[in-house]
Amino acid sequence: MQLQLALDFITTEEAIDVLRKVGDGIDIVEVGTPFVIDEGIHAVREIRQAFPSLKILADLKIMDAGEHETTSAINAGADIVTVLGVASNATIRASLAAAKKVGKEIMVDLIDVPDIEKRAAELDALGVDYLCVHTAFDVQSTGKNPLMELQVVKKATKSAKTAVAGGIKLSTLGEIVAEKPAILIVGGGITGQADKRAAALEMKRVMGQ
Amino acid sequence: MQLQLALDFITTEEAIDVLRKVGDGIDIVEVGTPFVIDEGIHAVREIRQAFPSLKILADLKIMDAGEHETTSAINAGADIVTVLGVASNATIRASLAAAKKVGKEIMVDLIDVPDIEKRAAELDALGVDYLCVHTAFDVQSTGKNPLMELQVVKKATKSAKTAVAGGIKLSTLGEIVAEKPAILIVGGGITGQADKRAAALEMKRVMGQ
Repeated sequence: MQLQLALDFITTEEAIDVLRKVGDGIDIVEVGTPFVIDEGIHAVREIRQAFPSLKILADLKIMDAGEHETTSAINAGADIVTVLGVASNATIRASLAAAKKVGKEIMVDLIDVPDIEKRAAELDALGVDYLCVHTAFDVQSTGKNPLMELQVVKKATKSAKTAVAGGIKLSTLGEIVAEKPAILIVGGGITGQADKRAAALEMKRVMGQ
Repeated sequence: MQLQLALDFITTEEAIDVLRKVGDGIDIVEVGTPFVIDEGIHAVREIRQAFPSLKILADLKIMDAGEHETTSAINAGADIVTVLGVASNATIRASLAAAKKVGKEIMVDLIDVPDIEKRAAELDALGVDYLCVHTAFDVQSTGKNPLMELQVVKKATKSAKTAVAGGIKLSTLGEIVAEKPAILIVGGGITGQADKRAAALEMKRVMGQ
């Protein structure tokens, strides 16, 4: 189980500072969608230069132009690129082909997918690497959480690994860890803490690592 | 009826050069999604500085974090920001509120929306400014075109203006113009021509302007 730190509302300079502080507390850094929009794919390139061996996920939430956008992120240094589950299969396939060609991975974000069970099975058959259940930032205040969706996706899939995101805090971590996702994605639960490395290490302890 | 030039696979410098060449041939410039991902929202800022009175659409295809992303684009100089029709109503409302607060507009992109008629009526009731029917770049090779969807959206809505995008060329313009969308979005149909201003002006002639 890997811990992914999502960086969303941040500049590249601040991100590099946070990553220095968190250090070995995390396994993957996510260059979040608002971060990519504000700074462009250059943000991925600068983080890659500062941390040559850190695994980087570029949260592009690709909806179209799958080949171009995936390639752009990978060329900048991304190891994993996200595509939206609500995108067409043509876009999923184009993104997947662009990633596989160079030995990189695709995560499909199931945010706002109407029928999670059906779509997860389709995406699993297409051969995507990760399926991410994700409670949107804009709907987290409704109390919705991604645990039930994670259980549905695990049952509906054979080979895709799972990831889970959306308002995860130390207090809600245990029940999610019990479902054994491959990647646990945390943002404010780490960046909002005074000692970010300690917060990450405490989460890793709950994750059994 | 306005003509919007979509700039997708381009650098900021090249975009400014294209815009100088097209000149008065277009009404709106679209900073396309792959362009925003490659260059960041700085691309909008630089185009705004180079063309202070040109209407700019930032094609963010927002899926979450509606307030932050909309505000980021508007602060950089955008007049219209796009949100995905497959996003939650919470995200649509957050984007719309952020735009209305400063007198700007939201366009909802209906790309890959499963039930266009139902969703168009819902979005119309939410008060979005524009609804855009859009054949994805990745599926244009299937021969799908946005004309029928435009007719469905026009029937399903009362106040939202319409826009249409996806592989529109001079040869397919006439039948779309007959449906009277508020905005016609063209990319390669202009940028792929040797004389880009002449291509745009010829399209405007077909549009009756």
